[in-house]
Amino acid sequence: MTAEREARPAGAPVRRGRGRRPADEVRAEVLAAAGALLLREGMAAFTIERVAQEAAVSKTTLYKWWPSRGTLALDGYFHAVESTLAFPDTGDIRADLTAQVRAFVRLLAGTSAGRVIAELIGQAQTDPALSAALLERYSGPRRDLAVARLRRAQEQGRLRADADPRILVDQLWGACYHRLLLPNEPLTEEFAARLVDNLLRGVAA
Amino acid sequence: MTAEREARPAGAPVRRGRGRRPADEVRAEVLAAAGALLLREGMAAFTIERVAQEAAVSKTTLYKWWPSRGTLALDGYFHAVESTLAFPDTGDIRADLTAQVRAFVRLLAGTSAGRVIAELIGQAQTDPALSAALLERYSGPRRDLAVARLRRAQEQGRLRADADPRILVDQLWGACYHRLLLPNEPLTEEFAARLVDNLLRGVAA
Repeated sequence: MTAEREARPAGAPVRRGRGRRPADEVRAEVLAAAGALLLREGMAAFTIERVAQEAAVSKTTLYKWWPSRGTLALDGYFHAVESTLAFPDTGDIRADLTAQVRAFVRLLAGTSAGRVIAELIGQAQTDPALSAALLERYSGPRRDLAVARLRRAQEQGRLRADADPRILVDQLWGACYHRLLLPNEPLTEEFAARLVDNLLRGVAA
Repeated sequence: MTAEREARPAGAPVRRGRGRRPADEVRAEVLAAAGALLLREGMAAFTIERVAQEAAVSKTTLYKWWPSRGTLALDGYFHAVESTLAFPDTGDIRADLTAQVRAFVRLLAGTSAGRVIAELIGQAQTDPALSAALLERYSGPRRDLAVARLRRAQEQGRLRADADPRILVDQLWGACYHRLLLPNEPLTEEFAARLVDNLLRGVAA
């Protein structure tokens, strides 16, 4: 930012210094830059330096908010995919779950997001700090959103009252992660739809 | 093995040279040594050198059968857990699935096997050769065993004929891997039993 101020020719209009941008705005710009970089170039290219450069903030600012490269990557990832993965509530739990799990599969299988989250989960297996960040900043909040939607369906009498929504999360989105991380079988929208159908109807004859 | 021959005192009984052991026997000993080393000390300590030493074979022999450390680790792992993870067939699919998924959860949560397979899956996300070996030597064969048991249940009229056994695998064992790799919620035997119950009965109200 110093460079930018120095570059202003004498007499040019005074731009509000970047240091004066409201913190929320800077934070949102950083997350957008981090998410875009991650989805465009993957974890290998993701460095604090690159994000600082693309968001035009100092590395010091980044480290103030994010203790590590991994936590910044996770927040950037969550920011990038959040809107795609909204949990609809039309009152029809079958349709809403099918739409949500289909959207999740499209994101994992049809965009670079799948590779990115697979690498983050992979790295977390031998990196306790990244693992803690992943649980707290990504999988925990995503679980909570799903559980909230499932609990509403229970309150509306659409799901059995004795079914544990936290377990349903593992049998829907967890099943998708299984095919992402161990791709013996393909991740398709048909798969997504059948996950929901199996779980709602049951498969006993 | 040369060292061993040299160490035989003059006049001592001639042991059959290790080089003469039948290949199947050597292979089984290597797998046992590899599996034991892996479960005892984890992936970080797992090297071709260590396995060669513990199984008393040459590194050349190991490389003849296993192209990499990862493939040897996977075969050793599979060998070590195979008997624990047998697929019972008592004719009662609910009881058999519950027993199998419970045993799987005990293995993942109660022994070092969970950490080992988590690290192997994690590393595979950025190591294409390990990923190929994992699918071919571990998750593929494990899937096939589960699918075979589920298909028998379909033939016996216990599961809906239109349910895809390959998808049920993701909703049972895949759900367990989800809690192993993203441990926001605990991996318990109660969880295992409820996975089976949810899927067989269905959770729609």
